[in-house]
Amino acid sequence: MEVLDALATTRAIRRYTDDPVPPEALRQMLFAATRAPSGSNRQPFRFVVLTDSPVAADAKRLIGEGARHLWSAKRAGDAYDRGSGNDPTSPKARMAASMEHYVEHFAQVPVLVLACIERYRDHDVYLGASVYPACQNLLIAARALGFGGVLTIWHAMRIDELRTLLSIPDDVDIAATITIGHPAGRHGPVRRRPMRELVYTDRWGTAPEWAVDPEGTQFTAAGPPRTTESAPRQPEAT
Amino acid sequence: MEVLDALATTRAIRRYTDDPVPPEALRQMLFAATRAPSGSNRQPFRFVVLTDSPVAADAKRLIGEGARHLWSAKRAGDAYDRGSGNDPTSPKARMAASMEHYVEHFAQVPVLVLACIERYRDHDVYLGASVYPACQNLLIAARALGFGGVLTIWHAMRIDELRTLLSIPDDVDIAATITIGHPAGRHGPVRRRPMRELVYTDRWGTAPEWAVDPEGTQFTAAGPPRTTESAPRQPEAT
Repeated sequence: MEVLDALATTRAIRRYTDDPVPPEALRQMLFAATRAPSGSNRQPFRFVVLTDSPVAADAKRLIGEGARHLWSAKRAGDAYDRGSGNDPTSPKARMAASMEHYVEHFAQVPVLVLACIERYRDHDVYLGASVYPACQNLLIAARALGFGGVLTIWHAMRIDELRTLLSIPDDVDIAATITIGHPAGRHGPVRRRPMRELVYTDRWGTAPEWAVDPEGTQFTAAGPPRTTESAPRQPEAT
Repeated sequence: MEVLDALATTRAIRRYTDDPVPPEALRQMLFAATRAPSGSNRQPFRFVVLTDSPVAADAKRLIGEGARHLWSAKRAGDAYDRGSGNDPTSPKARMAASMEHYVEHFAQVPVLVLACIERYRDHDVYLGASVYPACQNLLIAARALGFGGVLTIWHAMRIDELRTLLSIPDDVDIAATITIGHPAGRHGPVRRRPMRELVYTDRWGTAPEWAVDPEGTQFTAAGPPRTTESAPRQPEAT
């Protein structure tokens, strides 16, 4: 698979078949992840890869419980069931259905990867620069190998229990919960805002002339649905 | 270029030729960057791309000043000039020479990209999950197109001046300073710790059987040089 194609077509995959992910594929994905850069090449990223052991089952169950709780709150708070959410064909309703399926079946995800970071500096936005590039490498490698995944923070409500279950040290943070598997069903293209809304030059808000999306690019507005229906948004998944 | 090869061979490039980066290449790199995932597909990432305008020259000068100051402090604090640093052929001394060249020539980097994030939540490690994957896409796309780059936080000492110069709003953070150009000179392979030190299963510190690096993989310990020379470290650049 060609690099630029892979980067342009790697999207969140939340529905998986029951097929396991072979060890050789995991090896290739995690090797790619660990090649990522980090501040001063400190390599503070660590990956706990959970597949089909009893411990893996416990971790999936714990995070699944947290995911259902968090999604339930988000669904209400972000008004996924109001306005166009009542039309099951709307982007909003389809996003909600996809998330509902994902959290309900969380315990069955083929592979769960907890991306962790050994803290070596105070929490600030820069800390993530030493773990999220590795997560992105993992997701791109999964795509290249015919798998799909998604980065979430569904572990957020179960950190203490996961720390105990997996013996994660106190000076290590869980930065992401990534699930991976064989994609099931149909998935639409990557949808983002037009480049000229995201890429500037010389002055904030001013796009360079060359910031033109390739022909055929599909767009979406940003973020979860707004509570008013007048906003021109399509809350597609990432 | 094949995806897994690109992921395994994208390393920090800090020496560039004077050749400009064509707009079409910038378009492809920034398109790849903006395809990255973000929380709830909010797409809070913004990229300010600076090439050869007077504003770009001012930004490069400002960040270059900050870079020289920060590197000078780091060079002393991390003891780059002690122990094996006295041997110009040591990894430590070569890393120091590379950084010295980088910060001294910062004003001449062909392309400066400030990766920014519109804050929509409090600062925590998760915020980075919505901007650093996009930065990694940018660096991988650059590699695929024959360019090289590196992610830094050299802007950290000049944020207020950059905000004024580029009209960056108050609710936007600069998450990274990325420089890009045609690689100059020779660059070694990506060096990381062995996979089994970074990838675990079921229990922290226990590597899965499949966590085996491909034959020929080159390794390095993590982080800047230690102050004692007994530590088995090779402070190669990322």
